[in-house]
Amino acid sequence: MHENIVKIRRVKPEIRVLGVDDGVFVPHSKGVATVVGVVYRGGYWLDGVMRTEVEIDGMDATEKIASMITASPHYGQLRVVMLNGVTFAGFNMVDIKKLFERVRLPVITVTREKPDLDDIRRALRNLPEYENRLEAMENAGKIIEVHTRDAEQAVYVQIVGISKKDAEKILKSTSTRSNIPEALRVAHIIASGLTRLKEKV
Amino acid sequence: MHENIVKIRRVKPEIRVLGVDDGVFVPHSKGVATVVGVVYRGGYWLDGVMRTEVEIDGMDATEKIASMITASPHYGQLRVVMLNGVTFAGFNMVDIKKLFERVRLPVITVTREKPDLDDIRRALRNLPEYENRLEAMENAGKIIEVHTRDAEQAVYVQIVGISKKDAEKILKSTSTRSNIPEALRVAHIIASGLTRLKEKV
Repeated sequence: MHENIVKIRRVKPEIRVLGVDDGVFVPHSKGVATVVGVVYRGGYWLDGVMRTEVEIDGMDATEKIASMITASPHYGQLRVVMLNGVTFAGFNMVDIKKLFERVRLPVITVTREKPDLDDIRRALRNLPEYENRLEAMENAGKIIEVHTRDAEQAVYVQIVGISKKDAEKILKSTSTRSNIPEALRVAHIIASGLTRLKEKV
Repeated sequence: MHENIVKIRRVKPEIRVLGVDDGVFVPHSKGVATVVGVVYRGGYWLDGVMRTEVEIDGMDATEKIASMITASPHYGQLRVVMLNGVTFAGFNMVDIKKLFERVRLPVITVTREKPDLDDIRRALRNLPEYENRLEAMENAGKIIEVHTRDAEQAVYVQIVGISKKDAEKILKSTSTRSNIPEALRVAHIIASGLTRLKEKV
């Protein structure tokens, strides 16, 4: 287990982090959802964006997000990958253990609400490849409560490839405007903003 | 002329500005280019994104950008519109005087290089509706040299609906990371990042 922790010697304020979130899509439909990755230098400076598409309720999110990251010109600078939870485009599960192995970067999931694992498990039963999806969910590990900017409102975190202490340091230093890291807050704005307006154009 | 200046009583650090830039496209081809607008609260916080599409070398940029702005939920908060020059998607000219009249917000164009007006004029001669394009170019007014973050490297600015003094204040306070306002720097990253990768997906 020990060799699977990427030791971060010092969390510099300008550490390069990637925040990944999905855009708007029609639930339970056939088709794809846009996924946007945003590179931040710490909690202040947007350095880059990347995008991919994953199938709604599909099984390709782990591989598509991994390829998006490794193909990016920013890959060499990135230190951590942050995801808005493990479910993308409905129940296209990101297996963060596999994602960590593919990109060799620590992965942190961050959500404002505590994920209801029983609820997710029930939903997964109605989908093909139940076992694989369940495995992805279980590979995300324990849900940790972390306080970032706001002392009263916790966020909920799952980690792979990084110690709880280092993850907390990074989350605190990059959550400059809200309780979630800027990279994730802005990934949400870009992914939903661009997909919401697509129909109007 | 005087009633056409929007007086900005105080340039607050958190003034809401929109930065607009176009994505990657194939020059001289038939088709459209993506245009992205990014809302920044001052020079630090990304508050929203919007997008539209304009014809390559077409004549619709002024109207498309105006509609994108007025249809946005951020319209009520915006104080200034900033454009990366007046030419979008090749030579689809934004008439910033008309844009100002349509959105009732001051418009500032900002470029790192001094626009070569003779060069642009020559290129316009090969395109339909030469007179209208020339008028748009002339409506942008005088090119002003402004120093923002870097005392040595000027940026080149054209303004409508705002005094030179107020425009300078806003440019200085929102150019927190480079010589151009964050809203414009990030609009460029998002527009080019998302369109560059489109083919790969």
